[in-house]
Amino acid sequence: MRSKRTIGVVLFEGFELLDVFGPLEMFGLAADDFEIRLISEHGGVVSSRQGPKSVCDAAFSSSPALDLLLVPGGIGTRREVNNPVLLDWLKTRSEQAELVTSVCTGSALLAKAGVLDGVRATTNKLAFAWASSQSEKVLWQRQARWVEDGKFFTSSGVSAGIDLSLAVIARLVSHRAAEQAANFAEYSWQRDADRDPFAELHGLVGG
Amino acid sequence: MRSKRTIGVVLFEGFELLDVFGPLEMFGLAADDFEIRLISEHGGVVSSRQGPKSVCDAAFSSSPALDLLLVPGGIGTRREVNNPVLLDWLKTRSEQAELVTSVCTGSALLAKAGVLDGVRATTNKLAFAWASSQSEKVLWQRQARWVEDGKFFTSSGVSAGIDLSLAVIARLVSHRAAEQAANFAEYSWQRDADRDPFAELHGLVGG
Repeated sequence: MRSKRTIGVVLFEGFELLDVFGPLEMFGLAADDFEIRLISEHGGVVSSRQGPKSVCDAAFSSSPALDLLLVPGGIGTRREVNNPVLLDWLKTRSEQAELVTSVCTGSALLAKAGVLDGVRATTNKLAFAWASSQSEKVLWQRQARWVEDGKFFTSSGVSAGIDLSLAVIARLVSHRAAEQAANFAEYSWQRDADRDPFAELHGLVGG
Repeated sequence: MRSKRTIGVVLFEGFELLDVFGPLEMFGLAADDFEIRLISEHGGVVSSRQGPKSVCDAAFSSSPALDLLLVPGGIGTRREVNNPVLLDWLKTRSEQAELVTSVCTGSALLAKAGVLDGVRATTNKLAFAWASSQSEKVLWQRQARWVEDGKFFTSSGVSAGIDLSLAVIARLVSHRAAEQAANFAEYSWQRDADRDPFAELHGLVGG
């Protein structure tokens, strides 16, 4: 049996709560396979957009090797796209990681860092114009619950991160492990990456 | 316009991540109407079952007046049903609150505290036998996504708390506000409190 994979979650002021803790619920339910580390530029306490504060396990400078990277969205991404320290860290760690994942506008940060050049990716449907403006080199997908392209998994807004995390567990561990996590959490897993009613609701595709 | 309602979320070691942060995502999206406070017996930092740590805003002794109480589940409830300080605090604060809500095995704590005597309530479907054994005076419902009975809202396991929180927003603010929060989070809101495929999946009702 292989050792646990380490998931590094990047936090910054104004991260979106469910972008982080939806996936971490599911990865936590597959705890024999994953270890979770919360990481921010300076470490310490970081406030979410909704208010609740989380305690980081490490700063960028002291973060362990990461098998998976998870980049959440939230209003704080509007500031962080202009933070070269964060963008550089994302670029380096993405090159080293087995899988790179984002939820919501987290993909705007990866795009700005150049990580998604030539990669099919999606993002939050209400913030699509802003997020996709961060890089013209990304093959932005307007309608998708999440997109898998090689080692990159990017999801639509907020709750879509839960479906993405289950898809990651299915790929890295087993479909059965993903199903067990969803059933434990009494979550009706949406397995179809292409089903995305919110693209139409938010005006990204014709009705 | 009425002032914001204050939601007090009770944290304890081993709380379940999504039980807390699913509902708080939705309440946070209705931020004009709700203020969030994380509260634990001693205040400070509290670890979830999955590992990530949260910073509390207050200890029991210093907690502000609460309009809503939110009690999560998680493996820590197995210990906290034997904590008279927590049970007493839940009883007093439940009497004062406008609404009392629980997710997953949070209802086991409310039941043990005597808060749910004569009340229709539900809980996690995998832990149903243990949770319902905490009080014979509760009218336990085996099949329900969530149950509303007067000022008490109790949900099934983990992800069901998201649907519960939207039902609370619909009752206290408006159906439109709940729909807006769900759409922003690209969440397919399950509006039917009685639809619960997990009761059958986990063997609580006949197939």
